[in-house]
Amino acid sequence: MSYFPSINKIQYEGTDTKNMFAFRHYNPDEVVMGKKMKDHLRFAIAYWHTMTQDGSDPFGNPVNQRPWFGETPMETAKNRVEAFFEICEKLGAEYFCFHDVDIAPEGDSLEEFFANVDEITDLIKEKMDQTGIKLLWNTANMFSNPRFVNGAASTNNAEVYAIAAAQVKKGLDISKKLGGENYVFWGGREGYETLLNTNMKLEQDNIARLFKMAIAYGEKIGHKPQFLLEPKPKEPSKHQYDFDAATTMAFIQHYGLEGDFKLNLEANHATLAGHTFEHEIAVARCYDSLGSLDANQGDVLLGWDTDEFPTNVMDVTLAMYEVLENGGIAPGGINFDSKVRRSAFEAEDLFLAHIAGMDTFARGLKNAAKLKEDRFFDDLKEERYASFNEGLGKKIMNDEEDLESLYDYAVSHEDPVLKSSHIEYVKNILNDYL
Amino acid sequence: MSYFPSINKIQYEGTDTKNMFAFRHYNPDEVVMGKKMKDHLRFAIAYWHTMTQDGSDPFGNPVNQRPWFGETPMETAKNRVEAFFEICEKLGAEYFCFHDVDIAPEGDSLEEFFANVDEITDLIKEKMDQTGIKLLWNTANMFSNPRFVNGAASTNNAEVYAIAAAQVKKGLDISKKLGGENYVFWGGREGYETLLNTNMKLEQDNIARLFKMAIAYGEKIGHKPQFLLEPKPKEPSKHQYDFDAATTMAFIQHYGLEGDFKLNLEANHATLAGHTFEHEIAVARCYDSLGSLDANQGDVLLGWDTDEFPTNVMDVTLAMYEVLENGGIAPGGINFDSKVRRSAFEAEDLFLAHIAGMDTFARGLKNAAKLKEDRFFDDLKEERYASFNEGLGKKIMNDEEDLESLYDYAVSHEDPVLKSSHIEYVKNILNDYL
Amino acid sequence: MSYFPSINKIQYEGTDTKNMFAFRHYNPDEVVMGKKMKDHLRFAIAYWHTMTQDGSDPFGNPVNQRPWFGETPMETAKNRVEAFFEICEKLGAEYFCFHDVDIAPEGDSLEEFFANVDEITDLIKEKMDQTGIKLLWNTANMFSNPRFVNGAASTNNAEVYAIAAAQVKKGLDISKKLGGENYVFWGGREGYETLLNTNMKLEQDNIARLFKMAIAYGEKIGHKPQFLLEPKPKEPSKHQYDFDAATTMAFIQHYGLEGDFKLNLEANHATLAGHTFEHEIAVARCYDSLGSLDANQGDVLLGWDTDEFPTNVMDVTLAMYEVLENGGIAPGGINFDSKVRRSAFEAEDLFLAHIAGMDTFARGLKNAAKLKEDRFFDDLKEERYASFNEGLGKKIMNDEEDLESLYDYAVSHEDPVLKSSHIEYVKNILNDYL
Amino acid sequence: MSYFPSINKIQYEGTDTKNMFAFRHYNPDEVVMGKKMKDHLRFAIAYWHTMTQDGSDPFGNPVNQRPWFGETPMETAKNRVEAFFEICEKLGAEYFCFHDVDIAPEGDSLEEFFANVDEITDLIKEKMDQTGIKLLWNTANMFSNPRFVNGAASTNNAEVYAIAAAQVKKGLDISKKLGGENYVFWGGREGYETLLNTNMKLEQDNIARLFKMAIAYGEKIGHKPQFLLEPKPKEPSKHQYDFDAATTMAFIQHYGLEGDFKLNLEANHATLAGHTFEHEIAVARCYDSLGSLDANQGDVLLGWDTDEFPTNVMDVTLAMYEVLENGGIAPGGINFDSKVRRSAFEAEDLFLAHIAGMDTFARGLKNAAKLKEDRFFDDLKEERYASFNEGLGKKIMNDEEDLESLYDYAVSHEDPVLKSSHIEYVKNILNDYL
Repeated sequence: MSYFPSINKIQYEGTDTKNMFAFRHYNPDEVVMGKKMKDHLRFAIAYWHTMTQDGSDPFGNPVNQRPWFGETPMETAKNRVEAFFEICEKLGAEYFCFHDVDIAPEGDSLEEFFANVDEITDLIKEKMDQTGIKLLWNTANMFSNPRFVNGAASTNNAEVYAIAAAQVKKGLDISKKLGGENYVFWGGREGYETLLNTNMKLEQDNIARLFKMAIAYGEKIGHKPQFLLEPKPKEPSKHQYDFDAATTMAFIQHYGLEGDFKLNLEANHATLAGHTFEHEIAVARCYDSLGSLDANQGDVLLGWDTDEFPTNVMDVTLAMYEVLENGGIAPGGINFDSKVRRSAFEAEDLFLAHIAGMDTFARGLKNAAKLKEDRFFDDLKEERYASFNEGLGKKIMNDEEDLESLYDYAVSHEDPVLKSSHIEYVKNILNDYL
Repeated sequence: MSYFPSINKIQYEGTDTKNMFAFRHYNPDEVVMGKKMKDHLRFAIAYWHTMTQDGSDPFGNPVNQRPWFGETPMETAKNRVEAFFEICEKLGAEYFCFHDVDIAPEGDSLEEFFANVDEITDLIKEKMDQTGIKLLWNTANMFSNPRFVNGAASTNNAEVYAIAAAQVKKGLDISKKLGGENYVFWGGREGYETLLNTNMKLEQDNIARLFKMAIAYGEKIGHKPQFLLEPKPKEPSKHQYDFDAATTMAFIQHYGLEGDFKLNLEANHATLAGHTFEHEIAVARCYDSLGSLDANQGDVLLGWDTDEFPTNVMDVTLAMYEVLENGGIAPGGINFDSKVRRSAFEAEDLFLAHIAGMDTFARGLKNAAKLKEDRFFDDLKEERYASFNEGLGKKIMNDEEDLESLYDYAVSHEDPVLKSSHIEYVKNILNDYL
Repeated sequence: MSYFPSINKIQYEGTDTKNMFAFRHYNPDEVVMGKKMKDHLRFAIAYWHTMTQDGSDPFGNPVNQRPWFGETPMETAKNRVEAFFEICEKLGAEYFCFHDVDIAPEGDSLEEFFANVDEITDLIKEKMDQTGIKLLWNTANMFSNPRFVNGAASTNNAEVYAIAAAQVKKGLDISKKLGGENYVFWGGREGYETLLNTNMKLEQDNIARLFKMAIAYGEKIGHKPQFLLEPKPKEPSKHQYDFDAATTMAFIQHYGLEGDFKLNLEANHATLAGHTFEHEIAVARCYDSLGSLDANQGDVLLGWDTDEFPTNVMDVTLAMYEVLENGGIAPGGINFDSKVRRSAFEAEDLFLAHIAGMDTFARGLKNAAKLKEDRFFDDLKEERYASFNEGLGKKIMNDEEDLESLYDYAVSHEDPVLKSSHIEYVKNILNDYL
Repeated sequence: MSYFPSINKIQYEGTDTKNMFAFRHYNPDEVVMGKKMKDHLRFAIAYWHTMTQDGSDPFGNPVNQRPWFGETPMETAKNRVEAFFEICEKLGAEYFCFHDVDIAPEGDSLEEFFANVDEITDLIKEKMDQTGIKLLWNTANMFSNPRFVNGAASTNNAEVYAIAAAQVKKGLDISKKLGGENYVFWGGREGYETLLNTNMKLEQDNIARLFKMAIAYGEKIGHKPQFLLEPKPKEPSKHQYDFDAATTMAFIQHYGLEGDFKLNLEANHATLAGHTFEHEIAVARCYDSLGSLDANQGDVLLGWDTDEFPTNVMDVTLAMYEVLENGGIAPGGINFDSKVRRSAFEAEDLFLAHIAGMDTFARGLKNAAKLKEDRFFDDLKEERYASFNEGLGKKIMNDEEDLESLYDYAVSHEDPVLKSSHIEYVKNILNDYL
């Protein structure tokens, strides 16, 4: 049975095609810098927005047309598994990712929820075996249920904390069962509404405490995915603790989690924090902590998380350049936890939107590879920092100078002659790569 | 000789006064929570905006009327010392702070600059001895001179780095000479214009390298002020490395500087980074790194550093509450590196503006003390987190639980009953404290 | 029958009260500047957030506890009428307001919806007669239903346009039936998602066309409420046509609607557009078009519509000052279409939140009145613009000068001597009024 | 004599060139949609940033290297004329623009200033005659001089108003002398710092009054350039009256200036107001008021006017599409009042930066033309609004429907079936045009 009988496997057809359901740029097996595009990009489809988003917003009712609703929540959940793997396969995505509540109904009790999860993950496992599609990451949704109104690991209520811990345990059990390569924590309500009633230190201690329990449990069950923390500055909380990459690294270091945790960076979260996506990746690289990417693009003129499918070629090129600099993203990948716009409410838009995102990343990858191969940035930087490769600069880099020796140098030399960055020229040339 | 002959020492006269040149709220010797207001607040006047700001902006020429201009830069510099201490004394500020270039002209060479600095600091020392006014912090301006166009410690030019190091050495020598209690680094151009030509890792390594040289030099000369890093997200750079408190803590930890560096937090920098001032202080407290405060208020509807004198009583109350929670701010203080608005161009506005700022902080302190004494926040929080003081919560806090035990707890208990925050009520009551 | 049996009519008890369910500042019959507080403020409770908001957000499920749910949508709707008037009466609000979909279920067809509306408005009318509570404004929700995904009056689909028109007709019929004093248009989806597919001119023409039909129909049925347009810059649309007060005035003038339309201004919409609330009111006053106020406060550090109950005393004081300058707000009023925070999920929070908002506006009114009575701003401004009351300035104001005469004046006179604004002093004094 | 002897006339050499001083995309005489590129684009070089910007910023001293400084201000001014026309000629820009204070020193009195202006404009006229370069617009700088601290036309001081008027008279005299095609008003300080001391109505009345004097004077001297108003939301004022295109249209209509004033739109001002550049152009088109364009690009992550040379191809393509829709921009043009970045401080960067901007607009034009020729947007929109071309829709457009007839239609028809926007697909295709 098929949910999209009229749609065939999406093929690469180039820019001349008139076929809406074709890749114009993404050619999975095309080799770029010695590696297949699909292995560079490690695309993952996300359950969250693809299977459960209904197109509602704070001012609008559901609008999305989806063909998988059954008579009961569990029937719907099972239909979704079928539909989801059909989408993944037809798009040629080799990875997927999900929150626990995306795949199974919560039912009337935690036990019922976990039983539902078990049943659905059996089905998912079957599908994975059939299709070869792999689990990039899973995570526990610890922010939608009313009980998490004041946070999960950062809750003020010990029993809520226990429930969060239970979901994490279950998440790790599932991860083991499905061979998850990463496990994500996004602190949807790990932050505060107001400092007036918040004990920030206690809350952060408790978050770290849960993470340490997760590490310990992973070790105990002999399954240790790469743990990932996903920064976001705001929304739903007024202020989220994992504001951005650097903030998250402060936390990771403070609690001694460096060995176990890396970052899952989202483009839209970056811009909401006042950064470019490539900035966040660069920061993660400085801390040797680039984990995985959530490709959702934002609208820089809007102050909330729009989670659009990425279509900005320049932004994606600069992001992929950083990924190449990092030597790739594995065991992470690039997931689309993106929302089709409300006006794109037909089920087939799910394909069109993923195609747009995958094409954009394919273009970004090819552009970035060309930039690398032409040494566009490398040469620029090499020349720019040349003074640190010899003489005084080299001694500085070798820690052979101190304030006094540099003072003596400075007062006994003329002011250095600086060179222009010619930055407008650089940007003009860069445009020819896009 | 006096630069402000018509202005007497500013006295506390209460809100009924018609005298513009009087404190309406700040009463230095009034005891609040067992300590004099002046010892809580440790006000410092800053040379930068008070003595050298000319009222120009990117679209406007200088407008400020200042009575201290002499025939030569050095004469002006000397006049400024006189005028500055007159201002400090008349305002009753017991501390001051400055950048090296604020106090002495740069001249034609680094040597000349340092000679000028020596001469002026002799004069300053004399004034300090006469008046008892102390140096809260000094710093080196490593961002205004054209040589720092690409950064100082993060420059791409080794010789520029040497000059920055020389300024820091000189800064520490001055600090020793004047008994500075803190030494500040604000990375005005330690950031980047574009990642296209930036080696972020190399630049940050070099910044840390300079800091370590500073620590070593302080130890060598037997003078170790509290080192302070001042975060700011943007401006003048497109992106500054010390974006906010948390980002700066990530850096401090990464380079092992925790023992030596704390944070100098500015209210306007906080809002530019998307945070409240009290948030930044709370973050610093979580890392046990609250150093000192730069009181400049911003305009949340404007996207640049307006550096206004603080007049928002609510914001200052919440900030002072955090300071009280911290057990005070010493050896840091509260400095006004604030700019009178362009329309307040008369010299006497320097007094009116500081009075406004000091009155506002006095109100903030008194409000915060009342909040503490009434246990307004304390009781709120105590009740809110009560579940972590006993039973399950206490075991969690004592690290006696793990994922499995919490899982067992969760699946065997009903969902907890949560309580409303009544947050609108809380805010209504809070207003009665302002 | 009562939905809130434990809550009595909210009384003014002053700031010393320990009773959460009491006004601390709002004393309805207290006379301020010759008028009762309640007549200055003309408070209206709004159905939208008070009766239908469930506490969900884009990342969270419903959480609000509400006692009025029945077995069928119509039963719920009827219960809501009871509960709503109980809330209004107990709070002492003399006005209310609603969207059509707030009060009655949409059912399976437009006809059914309108029949439901008729039935419920019969009930509402009964309640109005019993209680004396009046309708400040009603409006048609033409943004939540999926059919309005591309706008209502600005839709690309003529049949959708017809439905919008039908709702407006019904809205005006209801307005007549209930004696509505104003009728509001908020263009929730009158804007665009992307210019790529938008004919902005056609859409705006069509919006104006609908407004003209509404004017004509009002005349025909002999009921002409004050029509109000409510600006908002963004959300749900990427860009809404009625961005702010000035934008809306451009539209109103362009289409010749000045005689019939005024502005309904919301504080949170103002800040999202980059303005203060008082700015928007001042703009409306310049165009003689201040209609009514929607009191919802935003969070200036967040980029979306938080619609908080107003608690910022300074902001409200400055807004109320503009209202006093306007000679009052009638036939408009001050409505709270505010949302309790998600954490304030208990039904009684509806009372606490309204009390906080009403108290804050009471404080704002009293502060503003004091400012007026002391002529704090009046004297400032009178002195500041004094030069336009005599000589050259008076001739300019009387249109007796032209470029040549002013040129002659300018080149034959010295530069004028300007006076400082002493703005920091002004702000310090202002604080004593808050 | 030449200021740039090593630089030849910039030629189009295509993207394969290695020559930094060549156009890669701008080919002035290439015909696009039946018109030469140069006639579509009507590029103008601006005196303001090109000749007078020194590279300083609020935190940095001047850094730009410029070869034209003489011994006196007037000598520098004369050198600038030479250098400026050399730049214009070598870049092949056929238009230029300036503020009065850009071209001539202000001297010690208004009379001296105007005498300087007369002398320099004689020189400029000579150059214009020699080179054929034309004046796109001139304007009076009524914001930099300290006298304008509280505005020019919106000043609180009648004598300052007279000086502003004198500058405008002089500006129009110059415009006549040089055959200016447009005359610009940018209200640099026509706004307010705080409403506390501002009479917004009086100030706006006075601004309109000055504009009417300008219209009258133009008629009197028989020279009527197209008057242009340039919107900007903020900076230097906290709030500028001409916030954006729509706000400015509200003002223009309110004061009956429609016949005489159009808009000069700047890309960076658009984004600071929360709009895209193409939005502002589209708004101007709706009001039939597109005048001219100021091409400066901003940085959407920064909250101030960065005035960068435009290099974003997508943004420029969408802007040029609107220009094509408008049937062109004449008598307006596209001026670069852009700043080289501080790091691009060499004089030759002025060429590199203009080349980057002109190349980017050339790409934008060609992309937009292709979009027009392929009817990419036209077809999209035609299909999208098809329902307004027949039946019900046509009757609506013909004003043959009213609320009652539409009500009858709506209640007697089923809900219309809507079509998806397929917006992600549209964006993917659009990328192939960039």
